[in-house]
Amino acid sequence: MDLHLHLGEEGGLAEQIYAQLHERISTDALPAGTVLPSSRELAARLSVSRATVVAAYERLAAHGLIRSRAGIGTVVTGQRIPAPAAPAASPLRPRAIWSAEHLAVPDLTAPATEFDFTVGVPARTRFPFARWRALLNDQLRTRTDVNYADPAGSARLRDALARHLVVSRGVRIASEQLVITTGAQQAFDIAARVLLEPGDTVAVEDPGYLPAYRGFLAHGARVVGVPVDSEGLVADRIPAGTRMVYVTPSHQFPLGMPMSESRRTALLAWAARNDAAIVEDDYDSEFRFTGRPLTPLQATDTEGRVLYVGSFSKTLLPALRVGFLGVPATLGEAARRAKFVADYGTGGHLQAALAAFIEDGDLARHIRRMRRSYERRHHLLIGTLREHFAGVLEPIESSGGTHMAALLTPGQPPDTILAARALAEGVNLGTISRWGIEGPGPSGFVFGYGAISTDQIPDGLATLRRVI
Amino acid sequence: MDLHLHLGEEGGLAEQIYAQLHERISTDALPAGTVLPSSRELAARLSVSRATVVAAYERLAAHGLIRSRAGIGTVVTGQRIPAPAAPAASPLRPRAIWSAEHLAVPDLTAPATEFDFTVGVPARTRFPFARWRALLNDQLRTRTDVNYADPAGSARLRDALARHLVVSRGVRIASEQLVITTGAQQAFDIAARVLLEPGDTVAVEDPGYLPAYRGFLAHGARVVGVPVDSEGLVADRIPAGTRMVYVTPSHQFPLGMPMSESRRTALLAWAARNDAAIVEDDYDSEFRFTGRPLTPLQATDTEGRVLYVGSFSKTLLPALRVGFLGVPATLGEAARRAKFVADYGTGGHLQAALAAFIEDGDLARHIRRMRRSYERRHHLLIGTLREHFAGVLEPIESSGGTHMAALLTPGQPPDTILAARALAEGVNLGTISRWGIEGPGPSGFVFGYGAISTDQIPDGLATLRRVI
Repeated sequence: MDLHLHLGEEGGLAEQIYAQLHERISTDALPAGTVLPSSRELAARLSVSRATVVAAYERLAAHGLIRSRAGIGTVVTGQRIPAPAAPAASPLRPRAIWSAEHLAVPDLTAPATEFDFTVGVPARTRFPFARWRALLNDQLRTRTDVNYADPAGSARLRDALARHLVVSRGVRIASEQLVITTGAQQAFDIAARVLLEPGDTVAVEDPGYLPAYRGFLAHGARVVGVPVDSEGLVADRIPAGTRMVYVTPSHQFPLGMPMSESRRTALLAWAARNDAAIVEDDYDSEFRFTGRPLTPLQATDTEGRVLYVGSFSKTLLPALRVGFLGVPATLGEAARRAKFVADYGTGGHLQAALAAFIEDGDLARHIRRMRRSYERRHHLLIGTLREHFAGVLEPIESSGGTHMAALLTPGQPPDTILAARALAEGVNLGTISRWGIEGPGPSGFVFGYGAISTDQIPDGLATLRRVI
Repeated sequence: MDLHLHLGEEGGLAEQIYAQLHERISTDALPAGTVLPSSRELAARLSVSRATVVAAYERLAAHGLIRSRAGIGTVVTGQRIPAPAAPAASPLRPRAIWSAEHLAVPDLTAPATEFDFTVGVPARTRFPFARWRALLNDQLRTRTDVNYADPAGSARLRDALARHLVVSRGVRIASEQLVITTGAQQAFDIAARVLLEPGDTVAVEDPGYLPAYRGFLAHGARVVGVPVDSEGLVADRIPAGTRMVYVTPSHQFPLGMPMSESRRTALLAWAARNDAAIVEDDYDSEFRFTGRPLTPLQATDTEGRVLYVGSFSKTLLPALRVGFLGVPATLGEAARRAKFVADYGTGGHLQAALAAFIEDGDLARHIRRMRRSYERRHHLLIGTLREHFAGVLEPIESSGGTHMAALLTPGQPPDTILAARALAEGVNLGTISRWGIEGPGPSGFVFGYGAISTDQIPDGLATLRRVI
């Protein structure tokens, strides 16, 4: 065991050793059963005589706190007391910004419910665990990629990703324009670091994806909510002077509709006129069920104004924490530097396994399989809502993704009240109102269908129907 | 395959499909051997008639770009041309700060040399790969920890870590005061986010650890270098008004000496008088060979001024990218919020595997084993330097870690010149001068002994001796 004791100038050495071991045993820092170093070993490490350690051990033994056990050594006998450390008082205070209510961490512990419509999580049980295990094991067997590496990401992964993006989404980003990140959240963070001076205005969709909003706020930006309607962000409501616009064009979060072609054109034109950047969060775009594939803003941006954000949280697992940021070439080196100062780079084994997963076609295969699965859930959900919730819930047209939204019709109790009632009956679903930026969002529900199986959807909705 | 085509209003649909496939095949976005979707499948996805797709495919086949293969489908035959994407011009420019020469990313691609004295990397081949694999496999088999979770880190890992820290280093940090990070670099970043307003002064050791320096700079801090001498940071040279002091007390980076007791006392007193915070980077402290264990500043800090940073990059592998930040209780919630906006949290599988690795004693065992190994290398290195480099290199007293430093005696050529000569002979070693903050550091070498085996050290030094 790696036991640290501090020997000062005051008091006998044996006394100091005794006192510190006594304290740790009684606070459970050294729990019962711990094998202490031999007196010889501890004496060598502390640069004291062996007799000094023996004296301390004998006294602890006399107090019944340790005893010698043949073949094992000196073992702690003291009872377990749960007490890791008394937090000290401190004069240090965080910057005022961190006290802002907006920056509170949302409760991420999903309650265990019978019917789980949690938004933003994929079908975790259908992740190809065995294949991923095999890829990681390959990595850990060949022992490559063990050191610090290019902070922007491994060349192999960025090449594979660039190819995947152009083939599957029509997005053209060269490897040097990509930075591998810890999920989409870090991509927002790096975009902010690269472009925003404190006080710059950022426009976000309202209602919108709060974690992105929080990320911009934390960099000292002035963040304003811009309304969305059935066609997405209302481009001509973006305030003058806005430096950056954050949008989810393929599947508006949380409402689910895609941004219309005319609004896309209007947004790109607005950005050109106002010399602004656009952060395109293309989450969920892999799971498009109906109509033609939507072309990302990035792919129609002839000016180089779009920063493109993607994540593997929905296509693979949130717990992998991997995503990417694609930037115009003029920002590539700054984004790489920003990633370096942020965390020195993303893990090598993870990147190597993901590169192989993309190269070998596993990603495309998994997406195709899950697209069919989510499509079934989506149709079942919207069909049931239309049939059994007519006049109560108004589903919002959506063409893909892993969640859909529905507005409560006027006269219904607030979504928060109804969601609490539903939760009491074992139905966990999100409210739209909580995603408001300038004020509460409209009243309604967000139904995530990643965590719930197709089989459970009818019963979950039947239960929900009884409470509203 | 997940093929995205964009169908606009202009031109025939078959023509558009043909043109886009043609372009992708000729730019290698669709390389030879790619199996295209069947005409039926593609027609469904694009919401066009099957005849439209067939027309496009026939034209591509006529150009020799695709052909039908029985039992496989429609396969691309076009030759591979390496061309992912033409980076577009862009009017967007990064913030001025990112152009600062100081923020350039260092070259992290270590040259493959016969004698590798790279600093800051552990003995990668001795990492317990098999055990780590088994722990990750357990995770991926039981399929827990797959979703978003507490951004500060898993309770299990933080508990295990808190216990490890108190037992092995005497550091008392409650779980709620810990944030699991992507290496030490993110711990610096979070410390800066929590405490620093733009323009605040941060004092760092000079010479010192540049990545930490860069991290503070990138947050808009004014960062000043404070000299170090044989006892470590000269506390009374810290400029008035400094808000935060960054130090490496157990093993000064890059010089290697520990901070003396009197300087530690002086630093804590200085911080108290000037209402400043201390960021203690306790890297390498696990590998102490001689003398009594050093007590971290955190453990003697009665005021709550110390933020304690640790990393598993030296004890395990840099590629895992995991470290931690321990803060006074008053900063715990802000640090958690800062981690949330930075990247939503560290990967779940990694945390679970690491928790088991600590709980099962693997970490302590690996550290103990590596301590003996590094101790042998350290003694061999310093002994050889004293014997064969007397009058040329003056080793700096050090009591542990994974590197040691030695100053060139006056009259020698600059360390950069000598290191380049050594590299030409197959000896890769670091220079001290490059770690200067206010100007170049003293002339000398940093010998990392993580990457080089004990066997190779004598020959590596003999080769070095010939060039200087």
